[in-house]
Amino acid sequence: MNAPATIRADFDTAKWRSLAERLFDELRKRTEDSPGVTRECYAGGEEAALTLFRDTAEEYRLKCSFDSAGNLIVALPDDDLTRPALILGSHADSVPHGGNFDGGAGVIAGLLCMIRLAGERRAAGGPVRLLAMRGEESAYYGRANIGSRALFGLLSSTDLDAKRQGSGRTLREALSNVGADMAAIEEGARLLPQSFAAAYVELHIEQGPVMVARGLPTAIVTGIRGNLRHRRIVCRGEAGHSGTVPRWLRRDAVFAVSDLLMRLDEHWNRLLERGLDLVVTAGVCNTDSERQAISRIPGEVYFSFEVRSQSYETLEGFYELFHSECRAVSQQRRVSFEFDERIYTEPAKMNDAIIDRLKKNSEQLGFPTELLASGAGHDAAVFANGGIPSGMIFVRNQNGSHNPEEAMDLDDFMCGVELMYAFASAGP
Amino acid sequence: MNAPATIRADFDTAKWRSLAERLFDELRKRTEDSPGVTRECYAGGEEAALTLFRDTAEEYRLKCSFDSAGNLIVALPDDDLTRPALILGSHADSVPHGGNFDGGAGVIAGLLCMIRLAGERRAAGGPVRLLAMRGEESAYYGRANIGSRALFGLLSSTDLDAKRQGSGRTLREALSNVGADMAAIEEGARLLPQSFAAAYVELHIEQGPVMVARGLPTAIVTGIRGNLRHRRIVCRGEAGHSGTVPRWLRRDAVFAVSDLLMRLDEHWNRLLERGLDLVVTAGVCNTDSERQAISRIPGEVYFSFEVRSQSYETLEGFYELFHSECRAVSQQRRVSFEFDERIYTEPAKMNDAIIDRLKKNSEQLGFPTELLASGAGHDAAVFANGGIPSGMIFVRNQNGSHNPEEAMDLDDFMCGVELMYAFASAGP
Repeated sequence: MNAPATIRADFDTAKWRSLAERLFDELRKRTEDSPGVTRECYAGGEEAALTLFRDTAEEYRLKCSFDSAGNLIVALPDDDLTRPALILGSHADSVPHGGNFDGGAGVIAGLLCMIRLAGERRAAGGPVRLLAMRGEESAYYGRANIGSRALFGLLSSTDLDAKRQGSGRTLREALSNVGADMAAIEEGARLLPQSFAAAYVELHIEQGPVMVARGLPTAIVTGIRGNLRHRRIVCRGEAGHSGTVPRWLRRDAVFAVSDLLMRLDEHWNRLLERGLDLVVTAGVCNTDSERQAISRIPGEVYFSFEVRSQSYETLEGFYELFHSECRAVSQQRRVSFEFDERIYTEPAKMNDAIIDRLKKNSEQLGFPTELLASGAGHDAAVFANGGIPSGMIFVRNQNGSHNPEEAMDLDDFMCGVELMYAFASAGP
Repeated sequence: MNAPATIRADFDTAKWRSLAERLFDELRKRTEDSPGVTRECYAGGEEAALTLFRDTAEEYRLKCSFDSAGNLIVALPDDDLTRPALILGSHADSVPHGGNFDGGAGVIAGLLCMIRLAGERRAAGGPVRLLAMRGEESAYYGRANIGSRALFGLLSSTDLDAKRQGSGRTLREALSNVGADMAAIEEGARLLPQSFAAAYVELHIEQGPVMVARGLPTAIVTGIRGNLRHRRIVCRGEAGHSGTVPRWLRRDAVFAVSDLLMRLDEHWNRLLERGLDLVVTAGVCNTDSERQAISRIPGEVYFSFEVRSQSYETLEGFYELFHSECRAVSQQRRVSFEFDERIYTEPAKMNDAIIDRLKKNSEQLGFPTELLASGAGHDAAVFANGGIPSGMIFVRNQNGSHNPEEAMDLDDFMCGVELMYAFASAGP
C-alpha cells in the first residue's frame, strides 16, 4: 500500500482541512444550479458528484467500484471486499436547488477518513469502506432512500413504476441506466452481501435548529424518527350564515379542527414532560377555497396530520389519542372526520454500542457528548432496520436543509470528521 | 296606467302564486351553478337576475330605470320618481354556490306587490317603488351592502380598491362597468336623492334556525346585528422541517391560530352565559397554498375574523378581547399577527312605527306578530342608519342561507308577500 505524497504519517491537520474546503468548493461548482445546487439522482448532478468523489479517491490510491444498485464503493488499497467492514456512508444526490451540505458533507467526511486511514496505514481494527449512495432524496421519484432500499430489496414495483416528478422516465429506467441489477431489484432480493457490512456510520448536517440553539458543533444520533401520516382529513360540519346561527346550533369545522389541535397540543406537551420523543404537525389546513367566505360558517376543513417519533409505541399511542380526540370533538361539536389512507414509516434505533463508542470518542476529543434524535429520514434508518448496527454523527447547520441557505461552518464539519475518524480508526 | 291582462282588479291569488313560482324557477335556472346558484355582483349572475326582474316588470308595464349606483328601480307607471316613496327593497346577488331565496325572495316579493298595486290601481297612500340592489353579499369584494352603501356615500377608497376575491378586478372597475357615477362615489356623496325614499321595507328569508324552531311562517324584525370584521389577518410564525424542529423551537402558525380561536371560543361561551348577544366566526382559514406540505411546519396562516352583535358595546368589548388574546398568543407561541383594515358595520334599529304597522297588518291577516332580531346584515340596516325609517319582514326558511340547501316554503313566502302588500297598499 503506497500512501500518496500529500499525506504523511504524522498527519497534517491544515492540509486535511484545506482538502475538505477544496472538495466542497469543487462539489458546489460542478453541481451549481442557481439558487443552490441540483444533484438529481441517476442523472447529471449526482453523476458529477460521484465522479468528483471517485477521482479524488483514486488520486489517493483508494480502490473504487460500484455495487449492484449503482452506488459508489471506496475501499482501502488492500481491501478485497470479502470481509464485513465498517461502512461510512451518505448520499451524493440533493433536492432541486438544495444546499451543498445535505448528503455531500457525509460523503466528503467519509472520503477524508478513508484518505487519512490509507495515509496512516491504520484501520487495524478491521476494514473500513465508504459508500456514496444515490437517490436518498424523495424529490424526484417520490420515494426516499432509493439507493439503500435497493441494497435491502425494498423497492416495490410501485416504486419502480414511479415517474420522475410525475411525468418523465421511470425509476426502473433510471436505475437500469446506471447498470443496476434490475432482475434482482425486481425480485426484491437483498443486493448487499451478508459479508459486506459489519456496521454503518453516517455523518450528516442537522436539518433542524436544535444544535444551533444549544450551541453544539457535533452531536450523536439516538434514532431516526418514523412517522404516521394522513395526507388529507376532512372535517365536516355544517355551513351557515355567520350572523344567524347561535353558538349552540353551530357545527363550525374551523372551530372543531382548532379544538382538536389544541387537545393534541396538550397531550403532546404532557408526553414530552414524561420524556417521550414526539413532534406533531398539521402542515396543510384549509377551508374550502370555492365556498369559503367571511360570513359563512365554515362547513368543512381539509387538513393533513403527521406525528413523528423514534418510538413505534409512541407513534401508535399518539395515533390512538388522535382518534379518540377526533371522536370527542365529533360529539361535542357535531362534526365528522373522514380519513384517507394511513401512511406509516418505521422509526429506526441507532445501535447502543456504537452510540457509546461515539460518546467515548467525543469525550476524548473534548467534543460534546449530547444525544439527539433525527427528525428527518436517512439511509442509516434503512441500514439499521436491515439489521446492520448503525450510528450517526450530526454536524451543526443553520437554516435547515433542502434549501440553498443551509450553512455549515467548516470548523464544525472538521470536528465531525475528527469524531468519525476516531471511531473509524478502531474498525467496525 | 294600463294593467296587463293577466292581473285583474279582483285579484287572482292562484295566479299571483303561480307567477311567484315561475319567477323563482326562472331565477334559479338562469343563475344555476351546481351546487346552488351563483349571482356574482356586478357580473353575470347578478345581471341575469336583474334582467329577469326588469323584463318581468316591463311585461306588467311597470317603469324600470337604474340609479347612479347601478341598482334597478321599478316604479308604477305614473311615478315620476320625484315624490318620497315607500321603497320595497332587497338584493339581486348571491354568494358563490348559494341558495335561490337569499335576496331573490325579497326582490320577487316586491315585484309581486308592485304588479298587484299596478293591477289594482291602488297605492293611493303614496308612491311605492321597488329597489333591486346589487352587491349585498361580501363574498366577492369583502364589503357587504355595496349597492345600498353607494347610495348613502359610504364606500371608502379601500372598499373601491378591493380586488375580487383578492386577485381579480377592483370594485371600482366593477362599479364603473355597470355605469355607476364614480366621481360621486369616490367623493362619498349621497347618491340617494332626499326626496326619493320616505320609508324602506325589506322582505327576507330568515337565515337562522329560530323561526323553524318556533313554528313561525313570518316574523317582524326589531333590529339588525352589526359586526366588526377583518377580511384577512396573517399569522406569521416560522416554516421548518416537520421532523426536525422540536416543540420548544416551533413557531407553528396553525397551532397559534387554533389556540387563538379556542381562547375566543371560551370568552364567547362566558359572555353568552351573561346574556349578551354575540356570534364569532373565522370563515376563511388557510395555510399558504404554494408552500404548504405535510412535512412543513406551517409558517403562515391567513384567516378572516368576524364578531356580530346587536350591541355596539358588545362588539367593541369582544374586539378588545380578540386583540388581547392575539397579543398573548404572539408571546406564548412566538408568532405575529398582521391585521388588514378593521371593518365596522353598525347595528341598526328598525323603526317603531313601521314595526307597529306590520304587527297590525299581521293581526288582521291572522299571521303571527312575533318580533325577531336579525343576525344577518341587510340593506335595511344601511337605510335605517341613513335616516330612512325602515322595517323588515322575515319568512321562515330551513337550513340557513349562503348554501344550496336553503329551503323556503312557497306558502310561507306568499304569507310574507300578503303582509308586505297589506303594508305597501297603505303607502309610505
